Amino acid sequence: MAWWSDTNESMKSKGEREKADHPSASEAGKASSGLTRTMGRRNFLTRGASLIALSSTSLLLPKAPFAADPNSDPMLVPGSPARSYGERSTFESASRSARESHSLTPLQELHGIVTPSSLHFERHHNGVPAIDPSRHRLLVHGLVARPVLFTLDDLQRFPSVSRLAFIECAGNSRDQWSGPQDRTVQELHGLTSTSEWTGVKLATLLEAAGLKPEAAWVLAEGGDAAGLTRSVPLTGEVLSDAMVCYGQNGEALRPEQGYPVRLLLPGLEGNINIKWLRRLKVGSTPFMTRWETSKYTDLMPDGTAYQFSLVMEAKSLITSPSGRQQIRPGFQEIRGLAWSGRGRVVKVEVTPDGGRTWRTAELQEPVLSKCHTRFRVPWTWNGEETVLQSRCVDQTGYRQPSRDALIKVRGTQSSYHYNGIQSWKIDRDGRVRNIHA
Amino acid sequence: MAWWSDTNESMKSKGEREKADHPSASEAGKASSGLTRTMGRRNFLTRGASLIALSSTSLLLPKAPFAADPNSDPMLVPGSPARSYGERSTFESASRSARESHSLTPLQELHGIVTPSSLHFERHHNGVPAIDPSRHRLLVHGLVARPVLFTLDDLQRFPSVSRLAFIECAGNSRDQWSGPQDRTVQELHGLTSTSEWTGVKLATLLEAAGLKPEAAWVLAEGGDAAGLTRSVPLTGEVLSDAMVCYGQNGEALRPEQGYPVRLLLPGLEGNINIKWLRRLKVGSTPFMTRWETSKYTDLMPDGTAYQFSLVMEAKSLITSPSGRQQIRPGFQEIRGLAWSGRGRVVKVEVTPDGGRTWRTAELQEPVLSKCHTRFRVPWTWNGEETVLQSRCVDQTGYRQPSRDALIKVRGTQSSYHYNGIQSWKIDRDGRVRNIHA
Repeated sequence: MAWWSDTNESMKSKGEREKADHPSASEAGKASSGLTRTMGRRNFLTRGASLIALSSTSLLLPKAPFAADPNSDPMLVPGSPARSYGERSTFESASRSARESHSLTPLQELHGIVTPSSLHFERHHNGVPAIDPSRHRLLVHGLVARPVLFTLDDLQRFPSVSRLAFIECAGNSRDQWSGPQDRTVQELHGLTSTSEWTGVKLATLLEAAGLKPEAAWVLAEGGDAAGLTRSVPLTGEVLSDAMVCYGQNGEALRPEQGYPVRLLLPGLEGNINIKWLRRLKVGSTPFMTRWETSKYTDLMPDGTAYQFSLVMEAKSLITSPSGRQQIRPGFQEIRGLAWSGRGRVVKVEVTPDGGRTWRTAELQEPVLSKCHTRFRVPWTWNGEETVLQSRCVDQTGYRQPSRDALIKVRGTQSSYHYNGIQSWKIDRDGRVRNIHA
Repeated sequence: MAWWSDTNESMKSKGEREKADHPSASEAGKASSGLTRTMGRRNFLTRGASLIALSSTSLLLPKAPFAADPNSDPMLVPGSPARSYGERSTFESASRSARESHSLTPLQELHGIVTPSSLHFERHHNGVPAIDPSRHRLLVHGLVARPVLFTLDDLQRFPSVSRLAFIECAGNSRDQWSGPQDRTVQELHGLTSTSEWTGVKLATLLEAAGLKPEAAWVLAEGGDAAGLTRSVPLTGEVLSDAMVCYGQNGEALRPEQGYPVRLLLPGLEGNINIKWLRRLKVGSTPFMTRWETSKYTDLMPDGTAYQFSLVMEAKSLITSPSGRQQIRPGFQEIRGLAWSGRGRVVKVEVTPDGGRTWRTAELQEPVLSKCHTRFRVPWTWNGEETVLQSRCVDQTGYRQPSRDALIKVRGTQSSYHYNGIQSWKIDRDGRVRNIHA
C-alpha cells in the first residue's frame, strides 16, 4: 500500500537524468514545423532531420519551449494529484455544435470508432429531462400475459448484453438534399455517433411479460416532456438485436441519451431508439403515432410517402480532410467513417481524383455490425485542385449511391435518410469545400 | 434546418397522449421492489405482475412517484437544452478512489469493456503535468540514421491506427500477496482499465528515423516531473503492437493518461507505457534505469529478482457480486472481466460453490487481443454460504493459477504481477467478502 508514499521520489533523482546542450527548441520547432507545412513526408523526414542535426551534434532535449517561464516547465514542478472523476485537458475544445433541441458530433475531431459520451450527438423534442433513477419505472403491457412494472434495479438483475453500435438521426445530412452549403462535416453529418451500449435484451423483457400469439408491434414511449412514441415492429431481427439499455461506454447512460433507460434498435433511425423509456405496449398493428405520420416519413417525388422506412442504409464520409478544413501539400492520411444499418461494412473505396481512380481503404479492426467503422487511405496531395469521395458496400451487397442516383429515386422533398456519396472539393489553396458532384 | 424550430412541438400534443387511471405508483413500486428483494426471478415476474394487475385493470402509467412535486415530473416540464460538451447525470457518483499518486477504477460499476476515460485508473510518480500540446515535442534519437524532433501535428500526419487495449499497473492486486483484506474489487484490483487508443505505430516513427542494424532496445522518457524512464525491448511483437498515442476513446488523451502523447505497449505492465512521452532513445542494450532495478522487478523466494518481467499474464475477476457488496437470494448474473497480456482470452470458468463445479462463462463479443473481455454466467443464489471464483485461459493455453500455485513459485515478497484466482465468500446474510481460498 505504498502507492502514494513515493510521490516525490523522482525529485531525488533529477540529477540522474541525462543532460545535454541543446539548441533553442523553439527554433528547432519552427524549423521542423515550417518544413512539414510545405513538404511531403519523405522530404520532411530527411531534410527536417538534417537541419536539426546541423544545429547540434549531440542530444536534442526539447525543453526550451518552456524555458521562458520556468514555472510552466512540466518537468520542473510536481503535477496535480489524482482525481476521483477525470476531465479533459484545458487545451482541448472539441465540442458539439449545440442548438436548443439538438447538438452535432464533431466527426472531424474523433479518433477510432468510439464517440466520447460527452460528444455523442443529441436530438430531443422537448429538452433533456432530469430523471431520478430510483423513481423511474418501465411498464410493459398490452398483448402480454402479465403486465409488469420494472424498476431500474429489476432491469439490471436480468441477464445483460453489451454491444458497440451507431445511432444515426433519420434527418442526418438533410441539408444535402438541397445545397451545397459550405459547411463542416460536423454541421452536415454530425447526427451519428457510436457507443458501447449495455442493457437487457428487449426479447428477455417481453418473454418475462409473456407475449401473446398475436403480438407483432410494440409502442415505445419516452418519459420526457415530448412523450415521444414510436411503433416498433417485432421482427426476428428486432427481437434478436433490440436492447433496453442502462449503460453507455462503461458508465450509466448520459442524460441526453435517455438516462436512466433507453431503447436501442441497432441500425434503425435514431428517433425510434426511444430515450427515457417508460412504457412498452405490445399490439398487433402499428400504433400510427403522429411521429410516424406527420414526421419521420419520406416524401417521394410522386407525392406519396414511405412510412416505417426505419433502416439507416450504408453510408460513408471522409472526415479528414473535410469541409472548411485547410490542408497543405504532401503526405496525409485520408480518414473517415462508414456504417450500415444492415450489418457490417465490407468495403470502402476512396477516390482522390473525383472518381477517375478508386482505392480500397483499410478498415480498422474490429469491423462490427451496425457500428461505425474507421477507414484510412494514404494520400499525397500534389497541390492541384481535386475532389475526394468515399463509397461503401455492406454485407448485404448494398452500395452507397451517388447523390444523383439517390435523388433520381427519392427526389428532393424528403428530410430523412440521405446517404449519397459526399464530395469534398480541394481548392488550389488547400481549402476544402462541400460540393455536389 | 428546422431542428430547433420544433422544440415545443410536443406541448401541443399533450392531450393526444394516452391517459388512464392508475394506482399510486409509489405503492406499485413498493410492491414490486419488495418482491424482487425476496424472490427468484420467476416468482417475481408472476406474483409481482399479479399484484399490480389486482390494483388496476387498465393502463398503469408510472407517473405518481413525481406527483408530490409537480415540478419534478419530467413529463410536465420542458427539459434542458442541448450542450456542447455533455456531463453525466447528477444522480451518478461512480468514482475512482483517489490518493495523491494513483486512483483506482470502480470495476464493480463498469458495464461492457470500455472504461470511461474519466474513470480510467491513474498512476503517476510526481503528479499529472499540465502540458501545452503546441509546445510539446517528441525526440527520436540514439542508434538512428536521422534524429528527429516531432511536433504533435507531425505525429498526427503519419498513418494512424486504433485499437482497444487494457493497461494494467504491474502492482495491481498487490495487497493479495498478503491479506486477505475485506475490501472492494476496486480497492483490490482497480489498477486496470480498457480504452480505444489511437496513434501512430512506434515502428513507423522508428522507420522514419532509420533504425541502425544494432538497434535492440529503446529508452522511453516521460515529460512529467518524475521523468520516468523505461527500456523497451524492440522485439517483433513490440514492433508490431507498440503505438505512440494521442487519442483515447475517441477524443484526445486525458491528462492523467499522458496528454498529449503516450507510449502504448499492449499487454505489458502499465509503467512501461510511458506517459507524457518526450523522448525515445534507441540503443543496443537495456538502459538499466532505476525504475527497472529498485522498482518494477519481482523479488523471488531465493532472494534473486526477475527483471524485465513485463507481460501481464492472464487474469480474471468476478466484479459482481464482489467485495463488500450485499446480495439477496434469487436470480442474478455473475459478471466479470478477464484479460491477458499475451493475446485473447479463450475461456473463462466460474464456480458458484467454491470449486466443486465449474461453469463455462459466456464471453461478450467482440473478444479482442490484450483487451478486457466481459464474461457472464447466470446464477441463482439459494441463500447458503458459498465461495465464487473465476479462472481464465488465454490463446497461448496459459491458465490463470490459484493463489497457492502462484505463491508456491513466486513467494510472497513480490509487489508486482499478482494474477491468482480471486475468491469471494458469500455469507449467509448476503455480504460478500474477499478471502484466500
